[in-house]
Amino acid sequence: MSKPWIAGLAALLAAASLPALAQTTGSLDGPVSIARQGSFFVGGRSVRSDTLSTLPAYGPNGTIAVDQMYVRYQVPAEAGSRPPLVLIHGCCLTGKTWETTPDGRMGWDEVFVRRGFPTYVVDQAWRGRSAGNPTTMNAVRMGRTGVDGLPTVFHASQEDAWAIFRFGRQHPEVFPGMQFPLEAQAEFWRQMVPDWNFSTPSPNPTVVAMGELSRQLNGAVLISHSQSGIYPFQTAAMNRAGIAGIVSIEPGACPAADSDMTPYRDMPILILWGDYVQESPRWAPRLQMCRDFTRAANAAGGRVEHVVLPEIGIRGNSHMLMQDRNSIELADWLVGWIGRNVGERR
Amino acid sequence: MSKPWIAGLAALLAAASLPALAQTTGSLDGPVSIARQGSFFVGGRSVRSDTLSTLPAYGPNGTIAVDQMYVRYQVPAEAGSRPPLVLIHGCCLTGKTWETTPDGRMGWDEVFVRRGFPTYVVDQAWRGRSAGNPTTMNAVRMGRTGVDGLPTVFHASQEDAWAIFRFGRQHPEVFPGMQFPLEAQAEFWRQMVPDWNFSTPSPNPTVVAMGELSRQLNGAVLISHSQSGIYPFQTAAMNRAGIAGIVSIEPGACPAADSDMTPYRDMPILILWGDYVQESPRWAPRLQMCRDFTRAANAAGGRVEHVVLPEIGIRGNSHMLMQDRNSIELADWLVGWIGRNVGERR
Repeated sequence: MSKPWIAGLAALLAAASLPALAQTTGSLDGPVSIARQGSFFVGGRSVRSDTLSTLPAYGPNGTIAVDQMYVRYQVPAEAGSRPPLVLIHGCCLTGKTWETTPDGRMGWDEVFVRRGFPTYVVDQAWRGRSAGNPTTMNAVRMGRTGVDGLPTVFHASQEDAWAIFRFGRQHPEVFPGMQFPLEAQAEFWRQMVPDWNFSTPSPNPTVVAMGELSRQLNGAVLISHSQSGIYPFQTAAMNRAGIAGIVSIEPGACPAADSDMTPYRDMPILILWGDYVQESPRWAPRLQMCRDFTRAANAAGGRVEHVVLPEIGIRGNSHMLMQDRNSIELADWLVGWIGRNVGERR
Repeated sequence: MSKPWIAGLAALLAAASLPALAQTTGSLDGPVSIARQGSFFVGGRSVRSDTLSTLPAYGPNGTIAVDQMYVRYQVPAEAGSRPPLVLIHGCCLTGKTWETTPDGRMGWDEVFVRRGFPTYVVDQAWRGRSAGNPTTMNAVRMGRTGVDGLPTVFHASQEDAWAIFRFGRQHPEVFPGMQFPLEAQAEFWRQMVPDWNFSTPSPNPTVVAMGELSRQLNGAVLISHSQSGIYPFQTAAMNRAGIAGIVSIEPGACPAADSDMTPYRDMPILILWGDYVQESPRWAPRLQMCRDFTRAANAAGGRVEHVVLPEIGIRGNSHMLMQDRNSIELADWLVGWIGRNVGERR
């Protein structure tokens, strides 16, 4: 029990000296100067299908690309030696997670760029600008398969999401001191999309693509959230090459404490939680699983830090902490953590 | 027959004086300075459903947001008096259309920003980061509706798309002088996504959202492509407020020549085509439809220019002309057209 407390204290002390650090790394006011920006795809494969379409204008037969992952990036003009960051969103969301907050403040994607980090925002495979695959649905529509062949695609209701994102114990209750900008919730709900994650092939193509992207970037910090929280661990377990560090924010799962810890040895890893976790039957066991992982990994030569924000004096954060009112403070706290633990670009 | 020829000649003469103009409006080399950037949603509505999910972890009942349109924007630091541009992609694609080309060159989104235009890139409703609606599919999966209730979702095959995008008459033939970077076709195919357009409500929520966005921007040039080619006309027919001009690139349809031309009176409108149109049974009738519209609109007080690029000496352009090898030349040709016809920001 003492280890997380010590880690928390260390983080608190480090955070106390952060504002001065952050000010040296690029302003959030005024124009931002971008050296290079754009978008590209990573991964994917060609499949042939005869159920692409049920329309006369588009034939049912042919080749399509699936499983690729969309990546949008900006490299700041003042990028010095800071490592590239890869931001991976969670369930029922897209890369929009990291952009402008629902109440219109600067997103982490731009904060990190202004702090000097080349920043890469992805859409998970089968979601957002990363194509899904309609062939199984069309196979049912064309009578080739039974209704059981339909893909699993769900849309979390706003009422369920309220508790999942820990705005309150249940809709429409609000936890006291809540930092999420609930006055802008209508804009937040519009970020949510249907989630095809239970229909994707195995291994998860996003995990495979993150490995390929890491190798391309040759030293990336993978910053994941919620559903994707475990992806960087899975990516590292497949191949550590190109991964300079892992920040897993409120992961849906951590690697099991009795699994192989070799992939995480000497890797700077942060697992970060907001507030109210113990009050959530959904999240409390996951936090415990990550504490267990942290202990096991560190016993095996790991460098895992497990931080629960209220334990270091930062209160009121929801599951969507990158959009909470103190989101920029948290981004700069991460900037400090990355500086201390990952250091400079390879 | 003479009118398009005269318009073409005028455009050719104007284009001849363009390079000097373009050079005065911001460089494509070196860093770009962005005053403001981010993303937001326009439009959308709340719906209640009891077929949101078939998973135990996510309830079937509740509220979701649908029909909203995702918008990403950049406002250049050197934005002077140039009007905002809104870029709307076509069938089976997303806003990625306008970003980095398949062969890795700068996308129109950034070229326009560097030329001084606030630039807004959207994902059509039900596509990309604009949520689709899985409730009808889940209703079938849950046995509430028959298989006929499944939505129409198609994915254009690469073989079909080859002819639709006019890389050649049919796959894998290539038109002589083709400007599309076919060596990078694998990256292009990864841009394609399933298209839910035939399942969206009426009026098309993208058209409604474009109207709302235009009013927010208070004087936008709507630049549409292919499937979305007719959307700016439909938006203007609903409400002209906020629309400063229309650029319709290779539209899938133009308004019928015998329809009401009032919405287009005194509105600067450009309809733009690439090469090889007459060799395409799919596109030749659409070009004719747009010529007929142009004649009718101009007879009723319109300011419609109808330009077929090879008729003004620019050859080899595919349907995806914003990604062709001469894409930056074409962007600057548009910059000139907008400058002459739309002028300064309101």
